[in-house]
Amino acid sequence: MSELKNDRFLRALLRQPVDVTPVWMMRQAGRYLPEYRATRAKAGSFMDLCRNPDLACEVTIQPLERFPLDAAILFSDILTIPDAMGLGLTFNTGHGPQFDKPVRSAADVDNLPIPDPEGELKYVMDAVRTIRRELDGRVPLIGFSGSPWTLATYMVEGGSTKEFGKVKGMMFDQPELMHRLLDKLAQSVTSYLNAQIAAGAQAVQIFDTWGGVLTPRDYQEFSLRYMQQIVDGLTREADGRTVPVILFTKGGGQWLDKMAASGADCLGVDWTIDLSDARQLAGNAIALQGNMDPCILYSNPERIREEVASVLASYGKGEGHVFNLGHGIHPNIDPDNVGAFIEAVHALSAPYHR
Amino acid sequence: MSELKNDRFLRALLRQPVDVTPVWMMRQAGRYLPEYRATRAKAGSFMDLCRNPDLACEVTIQPLERFPLDAAILFSDILTIPDAMGLGLTFNTGHGPQFDKPVRSAADVDNLPIPDPEGELKYVMDAVRTIRRELDGRVPLIGFSGSPWTLATYMVEGGSTKEFGKVKGMMFDQPELMHRLLDKLAQSVTSYLNAQIAAGAQAVQIFDTWGGVLTPRDYQEFSLRYMQQIVDGLTREADGRTVPVILFTKGGGQWLDKMAASGADCLGVDWTIDLSDARQLAGNAIALQGNMDPCILYSNPERIREEVASVLASYGKGEGHVFNLGHGIHPNIDPDNVGAFIEAVHALSAPYHR
Repeated sequence: MSELKNDRFLRALLRQPVDVTPVWMMRQAGRYLPEYRATRAKAGSFMDLCRNPDLACEVTIQPLERFPLDAAILFSDILTIPDAMGLGLTFNTGHGPQFDKPVRSAADVDNLPIPDPEGELKYVMDAVRTIRRELDGRVPLIGFSGSPWTLATYMVEGGSTKEFGKVKGMMFDQPELMHRLLDKLAQSVTSYLNAQIAAGAQAVQIFDTWGGVLTPRDYQEFSLRYMQQIVDGLTREADGRTVPVILFTKGGGQWLDKMAASGADCLGVDWTIDLSDARQLAGNAIALQGNMDPCILYSNPERIREEVASVLASYGKGEGHVFNLGHGIHPNIDPDNVGAFIEAVHALSAPYHR
Repeated sequence: MSELKNDRFLRALLRQPVDVTPVWMMRQAGRYLPEYRATRAKAGSFMDLCRNPDLACEVTIQPLERFPLDAAILFSDILTIPDAMGLGLTFNTGHGPQFDKPVRSAADVDNLPIPDPEGELKYVMDAVRTIRRELDGRVPLIGFSGSPWTLATYMVEGGSTKEFGKVKGMMFDQPELMHRLLDKLAQSVTSYLNAQIAAGAQAVQIFDTWGGVLTPRDYQEFSLRYMQQIVDGLTREADGRTVPVILFTKGGGQWLDKMAASGADCLGVDWTIDLSDARQLAGNAIALQGNMDPCILYSNPERIREEVASVLASYGKGEGHVFNLGHGIHPNIDPDNVGAFIEAVHALSAPYHR
């Protein structure tokens, strides 16, 4: 493997000194880039793009060709695991993901296989290997998975939901069944992420998109507990370097103290909490990633620069900050505004690292 | 006006002693009730039902015939104000509310009229008068409005949104224009709620459904500030009694200290924060309303009773608690489970008021 030329991101995750604050964006390989839309059109469906390692590699690297980002993230989807479990995933324009066979009964849960990462999910590992080779040490590659609770929401609901009635119905009415499902998902995610690490992922992020819809008690019992189980089971070293783990619960700002006890290296934070408060709540033994409102990118370079300055000031001096949006970049954003954003993070952050 | 036979709800809002904790449910007049669905079918469209004072009264009172609820809430919609401003509101099944003429430019904002509550919105005041007469003092009647920020999200987006790109785009790129829109909405909401109070509403609630999608700074500047302006302008007495004001920001649990300084009598709380923490954060000079996860009602009477006990214990001893769900009841809930819920609140709460 080539030597890593830019390790700011990995250093910040481990709270080691850096020259400027590293930055990447959730969904940085995505529809706001015309070159992404061209590759996507060539690939066929969204899942066809995920399943083609060469094209997945192409779109993963596209944003790095435009912007001096400090990390690449595997192009894939959080629903690859339930898809590999045989639930029949399709993406229909305007309706989001849908499963042909939602998980509703005890038999449905007990019949779910734990996918083989080098079997049904080999296309993901092939993408990781291809991207890692093509990156050639330029920046680190992030692997990822959905959290067990987040995967369960889609699997039980059969797709996206605003109300979470079916999945919470199962959780409240049949908690033991829900625990069996979550345990199976935690086992699947652990082996999936370990395979990504073996294939070349240099850091991993667990996306808990829907942990924030739970009560504090239920978050700990049904979401955090299974992320903890995954963190405990991960290979934490590769190529002689630590492989840092990032947990991101959207809407989980109030629970950073609980998340900090999980053994993760870094917590993702959305924009509904100030980073100064987040830092205090999480304690100073863990890095934070975030947390600019992605909608700032609808404004203009001057306003974006102001907001970057505000987020940097909110985190303040000291190591352990990875700059990111608080959620994925939207499809309608002007790439020039993204350029202004990334430039501002590097230009304005140096004083915080002296 | 008839004497109020059950004033638990009003007393709890003012932190006065009660025998048991009062309870009502957001969207208690709604699709989970077969008798509601029958009236709705008779009325025509959803807005036809809102515009018919007799039928609006009928559905307002339906849940009180089934359950010993401690308050009635006017059957209406938060979007009556933008509708009365001439934006052309329609509700399309599966797509939620839609406006023919979304608000996008300075001219759009400046041309918006401030609706006359006894003119274009007279149907709402007629409904309040009809319901108040029909209630005949059984329980108090709650009036309500959307918050300026929440109304603005629908008006600028043209309907529902998950990303808030257009409304936040305006907020970040043209903050002065957004302030002009919000000020006009705050004036409209103030006169609308004062007219409801004059027509007979005995408490009012401001629904800030979307304040929780903002940063702490933007919440204060673009949502809370305008709710404060409304609270300052409300008539706070009618029939010789105080008319309490409830503010409810969904996802606003972390900002209860800021909300408590608004002069409102009560803060609505969703289930993502424990009431014990909420009480501490809000200080002890304000009542709290909430906060059971509505999805508990998908389970069974025994589990529901356990959860009611848990929410009551979380608030603890002392006055100032109005029991409610943390958000509206879902359409698929079994009314028998609702009965078990309401019964449990009254049965289990007496020890907290001795």
